[in-house]
Amino acid sequence: MSEMQNPYLMFLGDVGDQLGAKTAQGIVDWRPDWCIGQLRFKGCVADLGIRDISIGDAVAAGAKTMIVGIVNSGGFLPPHWISEIIEALDAGMDIASGLHIRLGDIPEIQEAAIRNGRALFDVRHPTHTIPTGKGTRRSGKRLLAVGTDCSVGKMYTALAIEKEMRDRGMNADFRATGQTGIFIAGSGISIDAVVADFISGAVEELAPDNDADHWDIIEGQGSLFHPSFAGVSLGLLHGAQADALVLCHEPTRTHMRGLPHQPLPDLLTCMELNLTAAKLTNPAAIFVGVAINTSGLAMDKRRDYLTALEDELGLPCMDPFKDGTAAIVDNLS
Amino acid sequence: MSEMQNPYLMFLGDVGDQLGAKTAQGIVDWRPDWCIGQLRFKGCVADLGIRDISIGDAVAAGAKTMIVGIVNSGGFLPPHWISEIIEALDAGMDIASGLHIRLGDIPEIQEAAIRNGRALFDVRHPTHTIPTGKGTRRSGKRLLAVGTDCSVGKMYTALAIEKEMRDRGMNADFRATGQTGIFIAGSGISIDAVVADFISGAVEELAPDNDADHWDIIEGQGSLFHPSFAGVSLGLLHGAQADALVLCHEPTRTHMRGLPHQPLPDLLTCMELNLTAAKLTNPAAIFVGVAINTSGLAMDKRRDYLTALEDELGLPCMDPFKDGTAAIVDNLS
Repeated sequence: MSEMQNPYLMFLGDVGDQLGAKTAQGIVDWRPDWCIGQLRFKGCVADLGIRDISIGDAVAAGAKTMIVGIVNSGGFLPPHWISEIIEALDAGMDIASGLHIRLGDIPEIQEAAIRNGRALFDVRHPTHTIPTGKGTRRSGKRLLAVGTDCSVGKMYTALAIEKEMRDRGMNADFRATGQTGIFIAGSGISIDAVVADFISGAVEELAPDNDADHWDIIEGQGSLFHPSFAGVSLGLLHGAQADALVLCHEPTRTHMRGLPHQPLPDLLTCMELNLTAAKLTNPAAIFVGVAINTSGLAMDKRRDYLTALEDELGLPCMDPFKDGTAAIVDNLS
Repeated sequence: MSEMQNPYLMFLGDVGDQLGAKTAQGIVDWRPDWCIGQLRFKGCVADLGIRDISIGDAVAAGAKTMIVGIVNSGGFLPPHWISEIIEALDAGMDIASGLHIRLGDIPEIQEAAIRNGRALFDVRHPTHTIPTGKGTRRSGKRLLAVGTDCSVGKMYTALAIEKEMRDRGMNADFRATGQTGIFIAGSGISIDAVVADFISGAVEELAPDNDADHWDIIEGQGSLFHPSFAGVSLGLLHGAQADALVLCHEPTRTHMRGLPHQPLPDLLTCMELNLTAAKLTNPAAIFVGVAINTSGLAMDKRRDYLTALEDELGLPCMDPFKDGTAAIVDNLS
């Protein structure tokens, strides 16, 4: 998929809760300079904490793409949003959407895009034919964030590592495999939406041959221990050919996300299986650190938990949100 | 997907080599009673070894579905086959195709199907929305054929086990996960064609709750050790919740299929990783046998190889094609 042009106008419509704007909030958190303002209808409950702005003012301020970074149940596009999207196209912006429905499947939007020569980005949908994975070794280096479960901070961890590396002047690019990450990176592949035969091939394309000192910092998805999505995680692991793995974990979770009957793996077991699988395409793969989302732990328990875990695993363990990722980046060479 | 109706008329068109009719040949080998005859154009090189028959005679003999069981490079439908397909629809048959292109995407075929009230089956394409996998334990029992590599006899082994079980009066159904298997079973899901997030969910749907004494004999795909397709294999393994696993192997292969740089796993390593992964959704999973395709071994080496393997693995090892699968079925209880 080609690159989305920034800066972005963040379209929220009249989304009914703050959680529905989670994707948009992620973009504002990680790429504040790209976000010119937010466009909200009367009745919109969410607020990204940036200025409200009209389509005309956004374009005058340089906005190139309007982002429909909304999650709603069903993934549909409310009909009363269509005219605003057409107005944005007529004003000269591209449109990018994370909804399940494709923008181009709505005839008025498709027609307006063609009329104005603008691009429509449906980040959930692969836009081109992906080859099957080959497993051939590629130049450059790669780090992959893996998890004990879904939604344990893999994207956040990867972005925090990219930032730390760039702050140190290292040659690193975050590689997005989910919709929020794609908006943040400006490109990427929604890996859980590709056809099953092409999972590892999609990751090989996402993180191709590169300079010897270049690091792809690849966003993981799911978990090898999640009965719903482990196939995605394994294909991603094989396609990544990771030199370095970071395990992400949320210590207060009592079962695998969405599956009350399914226990979480312990961290050592999870690391062992990830390493075994990773070595198929990169025998030199190692773990370089563990990222813990400690937001559910009491302040006085946090440090003890991390210290005990470091002793057990022999790896730097930290909460990237509170502690940064310096100790992980120190391990990358 | 709904069930295809048999008997079948096997359509070969003017396919250029016997290998292009491999799928059709598999159907004839496993379901000879379903195959009323073959329809071949002048210049057709392939021969299924059954009688040549016209559309009219096939319908008169009871044919319900015409099978386009052809593999060609590109997966397209040669334009000069279209009129014959329309004639078959007009004569009252459904059409089933294993090509990449969808029959319904060809307007004349779609129109003829509607006009005649006939069904079009595109076995490579999932026909409906599949839920994500849940990993919840299901009633009934399941056997899954897994492999050291692609194309090592997983479908053949599963079908041979189903046949042996049925010959013994056991309650067993072959569950197809690839196109040839789907034609043979009359239904199934082409698992490598589903969207990545739904691999295990598709298998849960394919082998649902059943009677306590019922066995689903599930066709495996790929290998946990194949860098291109391991995600499919893992999702299939989790979705299957196999009680019993059979490892399939081709002992003369020198590298993973299609990947000259990728060595084959040894059998014990392959069994260990499959068992570890299988136990996520069925802690009682065990291996019950090993199926070897010995067609590449000299006659006098064959028996020694299997005996040595039995000693090493402590499991019945046989070539299902030459030795049957009785020793595996003896292990099912």
